[in-house]
Amino acid sequence: MSVNKNAVILLSGGLDSAVTLYYAKSKGYKPAALIFDYNQRHRKEIKSAVRIAALNNLKYYVIKIGLGWVKSSLTDRKIKVVSGRNLKSKKIPLTYVSGRNIIFLSYAASFAESIGAKSIFIGAHIEDYSGYPDCRPQFLESFKEAINEGLKCKGIKIKTPLLHKSKKEIIELGLKLNVPFKYTWSCYKGGKAPCGKCDSCRFRIQAFRQLGMEDPLLAKMSHVTSGA
Amino acid sequence: MSVNKNAVILLSGGLDSAVTLYYAKSKGYKPAALIFDYNQRHRKEIKSAVRIAALNNLKYYVIKIGLGWVKSSLTDRKIKVVSGRNLKSKKIPLTYVSGRNIIFLSYAASFAESIGAKSIFIGAHIEDYSGYPDCRPQFLESFKEAINEGLKCKGIKIKTPLLHKSKKEIIELGLKLNVPFKYTWSCYKGGKAPCGKCDSCRFRIQAFRQLGMEDPLLAKMSHVTSGA
Repeated sequence: MSVNKNAVILLSGGLDSAVTLYYAKSKGYKPAALIFDYNQRHRKEIKSAVRIAALNNLKYYVIKIGLGWVKSSLTDRKIKVVSGRNLKSKKIPLTYVSGRNIIFLSYAASFAESIGAKSIFIGAHIEDYSGYPDCRPQFLESFKEAINEGLKCKGIKIKTPLLHKSKKEIIELGLKLNVPFKYTWSCYKGGKAPCGKCDSCRFRIQAFRQLGMEDPLLAKMSHVTSGA
Repeated sequence: MSVNKNAVILLSGGLDSAVTLYYAKSKGYKPAALIFDYNQRHRKEIKSAVRIAALNNLKYYVIKIGLGWVKSSLTDRKIKVVSGRNLKSKKIPLTYVSGRNIIFLSYAASFAESIGAKSIFIGAHIEDYSGYPDCRPQFLESFKEAINEGLKCKGIKIKTPLLHKSKKEIIELGLKLNVPFKYTWSCYKGGKAPCGKCDSCRFRIQAFRQLGMEDPLLAKMSHVTSGA
């Protein structure tokens, strides 16, 4: 009996989901991607996600989501992006978007059923679930149960290959899988180059440094700005 | 200690969700409404939902949802709306929209958390859950567990006051609560008047007949067409 290798992947344009995609492909999955436009502060991460999908010849949809009621520094330009989140703190950061993964995974469930996929890949990991309740393994397990009750098809799995990895370990895995990190975008702000100061930038830069290398995205940027 | 009576209600423009709204209000809830535009065959039910929300001075959002991958006679005009569904059959009808309530309730979860509501009302009932997996009590219970894992706030309930009622009983309840049935729309097609033949029309007409009365919507329509 052949195993069903059709899959859905949530692609954000960031580093984690890119590594998750390359991991899924390395295991023989044939992913189709969902990319979400939830009125992020900037379009850079959507463009990055589309680029990564296109690079891999994925079938993909960009889904526009209106969350007019959400107060988050990721969607509301009036709320300042602050940095300095402590990964060991259980405090939920201002970048929390209420129900974001709940909504994303709901679309993924509908999409998966429609294309006959049994696996949904998401790049959630331990450093996120310290702060975001919708990245926690308990939520992901519980949500999997719920969608299998609510769909016509049964046996859909939510796959989280990065769940217990640190950012450094995620990058190490990505390097092995030849993930084109230079095309990923992590900065919460949407400047020409990453700000280097927001939490997302800090964790990324730090992880590359731990591996003794420069972030390929920054290397590309300095190349551009130097005009070389 | 005062009980939190803020609520979210999913309003479709149909009869069931209208009765659910009036029921919630009769119990002292203060609902805000979510109305979904998922590229239904017609705009009539969205207009009806907006009208009912406005009549009740509800705060509401109309949310546009792209489900380009879904093959359903409710969203794909190439698929014929067939009638003749047997309510005792467990077969899933062609009007099934994969993951619809999963997605709707996900938005409701995010909205509820944002406005500090602890109750989400949905008009799901027994005659639906014979056919639609995302109307079944097992799904609704399981989904409630999942959102409480995935949100920052805890203790959100999904309330289904119609769950064990037949269409006839739902209408009886609505009559007691003075639901303006003439403003609700149930027909799967979007003609000037209800087609009277699709399953949704048939079940509605039949239920009003069982109560020895004409559907107020049809009465209004015949009034219009006769020019009286």
